[in-house]
Amino acid sequence: MDDQSTFGGSEARVPPEVRVVNVGLDLLAESVRQQGHDVVNIDWRIPAAGDAEVIGALARLMGRHAQRISEANAEVFRRLDSASPMLTEVATAIDAVPDMSDRTILHPGPPLDWAEFCDPLRRSVRATVIAEGWAATLEEAEALVASGQVALEPANHHAAVAPMATAIGPSAPVFVVGFDDRVAYSSINQGPGTTAWFGVDKPEAVERLRWLADVAGPILAKTIASSGPIDVFAIAAQGLHMGDDLHMRTQATGNLLLRHLFADLVDTRADQLGAFARYWSANHLFFLNIVMAAAKATTSWAAEVPDSSVVVAMARNGTTYGIQMPGPGDQWYMAPAPPVQHAMYYAGFGPETSAPDIGDSAVLELIGLGGPAAAGAAAVAAFVGGTMADARAVTEQMAHISIGRSSRFTIPTLDYVGTPVGVDIRKVVELQITPSVNTGILHRSDGSGQVGAGVAVAPIELFTEAVLALDANLG
Amino acid sequence: MDDQSTFGGSEARVPPEVRVVNVGLDLLAESVRQQGHDVVNIDWRIPAAGDAEVIGALARLMGRHAQRISEANAEVFRRLDSASPMLTEVATAIDAVPDMSDRTILHPGPPLDWAEFCDPLRRSVRATVIAEGWAATLEEAEALVASGQVALEPANHHAAVAPMATAIGPSAPVFVVGFDDRVAYSSINQGPGTTAWFGVDKPEAVERLRWLADVAGPILAKTIASSGPIDVFAIAAQGLHMGDDLHMRTQATGNLLLRHLFADLVDTRADQLGAFARYWSANHLFFLNIVMAAAKATTSWAAEVPDSSVVVAMARNGTTYGIQMPGPGDQWYMAPAPPVQHAMYYAGFGPETSAPDIGDSAVLELIGLGGPAAAGAAAVAAFVGGTMADARAVTEQMAHISIGRSSRFTIPTLDYVGTPVGVDIRKVVELQITPSVNTGILHRSDGSGQVGAGVAVAPIELFTEAVLALDANLG
Repeated sequence: MDDQSTFGGSEARVPPEVRVVNVGLDLLAESVRQQGHDVVNIDWRIPAAGDAEVIGALARLMGRHAQRISEANAEVFRRLDSASPMLTEVATAIDAVPDMSDRTILHPGPPLDWAEFCDPLRRSVRATVIAEGWAATLEEAEALVASGQVALEPANHHAAVAPMATAIGPSAPVFVVGFDDRVAYSSINQGPGTTAWFGVDKPEAVERLRWLADVAGPILAKTIASSGPIDVFAIAAQGLHMGDDLHMRTQATGNLLLRHLFADLVDTRADQLGAFARYWSANHLFFLNIVMAAAKATTSWAAEVPDSSVVVAMARNGTTYGIQMPGPGDQWYMAPAPPVQHAMYYAGFGPETSAPDIGDSAVLELIGLGGPAAAGAAAVAAFVGGTMADARAVTEQMAHISIGRSSRFTIPTLDYVGTPVGVDIRKVVELQITPSVNTGILHRSDGSGQVGAGVAVAPIELFTEAVLALDANLG
Repeated sequence: MDDQSTFGGSEARVPPEVRVVNVGLDLLAESVRQQGHDVVNIDWRIPAAGDAEVIGALARLMGRHAQRISEANAEVFRRLDSASPMLTEVATAIDAVPDMSDRTILHPGPPLDWAEFCDPLRRSVRATVIAEGWAATLEEAEALVASGQVALEPANHHAAVAPMATAIGPSAPVFVVGFDDRVAYSSINQGPGTTAWFGVDKPEAVERLRWLADVAGPILAKTIASSGPIDVFAIAAQGLHMGDDLHMRTQATGNLLLRHLFADLVDTRADQLGAFARYWSANHLFFLNIVMAAAKATTSWAAEVPDSSVVVAMARNGTTYGIQMPGPGDQWYMAPAPPVQHAMYYAGFGPETSAPDIGDSAVLELIGLGGPAAAGAAAVAAFVGGTMADARAVTEQMAHISIGRSSRFTIPTLDYVGTPVGVDIRKVVELQITPSVNTGILHRSDGSGQVGAGVAVAPIELFTEAVLALDANLG
């Protein structure tokens, strides 16, 4: 031990017997640690980045209104943690989805004028218009939509969810997933490659949409009618223990479902079953849309609880990023959609070729899947630093802003701790930590489809706006 | 800090500034640790339990012969770590398996007289005799075998492996797995429940054997002919990252294979494909036999390297436990088969109803799967203490007695460290740590089938015998 320890200058050293409690930034703590001493680090930051109006709102929401919010949040947590949506049916959108007209196309994210649609979503809508038979060419499709003759509506306004740039037309087959009278809908995943949900409007992408409606939908409808209802979260819980985060990777869950449905699929004796098998075998995200619909049914139930500070919708359309809070109506808190931050790109692509964050799949992050489950998913680790410690850090970040731990979605390698569930806007704004969302990345302009994947971070502004609104509502 | 520290009596304390290096048993170290001091613990034990003859042999094998053995082991490791056996075919045993007569039945483990066969293996052989059409009743089957008219031979002597109490008759379909001219064979997994490989000889078990030969075998043969060769260890490596240990659990790998073969299965247009689908969907160990055959092809290649101290066969027949060392011939080092130590039993069963350890599946533990992979397998943790730390301890034990770490079988949660590969009899005997084998447990006498599962520990005697033999051979 060096007895000449002194403070000051570039050779600042701590005394040999010092005990240090560090509050705030870790810089001092790290310096003390490097000199071989124990440090207790208190992770403290200036709340709400020091904004006085917001701090006032937070003070009320965590003080005067704390009891009321806490009771509401407890009920929200119960619903998010206990709902058991079942996949019961595959049906045609116009027959199943509420308030769907024969000229409606559902899109991801908050509402948006056609002029504001990002390039990949424009392409997906045009491909869908052609697949529906409303236009023969992309130019005709563009003109039809621009003329206002197609009703473009957020899927979320119809109890539905659309991953990435998925557009859902009236003839599209949809998964019907729910419990009691809370039902939600999602499209059938279009698969990798030249597909509209990745922002591709080539003829193959249109053909895939038609094939899903004509072949895959009927085969799945018959299969699920024969298999009986499927407990979606029971499969998801198993998949979490097999390396899926249920957002960026749904390989294990898709395979579990395939094994479960194998005999019923064979029993359909469908002529095109071989083609369907090739489609499924090549589609690692087949389960994504199903678990998204289950998540939407779950958050819809939670959305009926007033006075809660927990987010019940989180979605992006490639232009705006929006969240919804519990209560009646379809109010969105919105901000511009950001780029995906922690990303890995396919060769030849990068941030400059990437569209902003897009899709309704962030609903998964509200119920303990995706980002909150990163600690158990080796596949996700690659995107956030490469080691499992990096993946665990994503889960821990989500725990800081969540109201509880899942009792059914657990992480075996952390000795079965539950994933964080229920994003509390008060914690988000106080700590300035927004949800991490595992997601794909699309080309921003040339219609070439997916160019990478990564972990997106939600913009803070919309949470701040929601905090101020909740404070105003509670009076 | 208490200045009255003293040594001696029940209140022995260490001085405040002591630095302790503890050699051997951890008791002193733990006591010092409890008093708040750092201890470096050297995990030292009396080598070979203090047996002078064995210590002499070890001294030569690790001294005078070390160079020669080390070179041989390096080549053995290269083979165990780099072989890529492909599943190329499903064929009928008599057509594919070398030196199989039309009255041969292959059984697991070392050679054994019929009189010494344990109850579950007797039942499996009798069921197989009836399925082959050599007898109409269990009594006739017993009489036929007892009369010596059936050639009972170890599967391992025919480049084959048989899990649990599997008996392989000439009409049984077998997986053909290999590379270059190293080929190995295994039966098609019979599935759970009333099946002969679990020691059941009821009519349903006989019927299952016939169904495998008449329906499942031809469907799989056609499917694999259509799909082309399948890289077994590539699938196994993925499965390790999905919670499989590839021995006690092969669910993820089985599902990966199903997804891979789905279209080719459908394309067979087989009449009985629905029944086959129900069989596969209900069989979580479908992949076990395939990966065992791949392991056997791999160890067979390693077995061609002379002078190595690495085990190349490890198998049990429910009566004896045997290992084989590299070199020509079929010499076994044997000891009585022990009970399975760390076990969980089905309700109503326990050690008193359990047959001793049985099956050829321990070949997996020689190439880095099963026990060596426990650290990544939550499913295994339950059998060895319940936490992932317990599972990691099993992997670490295997590392102490292995010659290297797999470059392809890795554990994501330990940041992709390889599983231990290549059991070195010198280390086993020096440290008195024998391989841990993940396995099922069968009823000892009533033919009711599987009664539990657990982690079995190999008997030390056969490794000691092999050490003495290697020492004698090297002179």
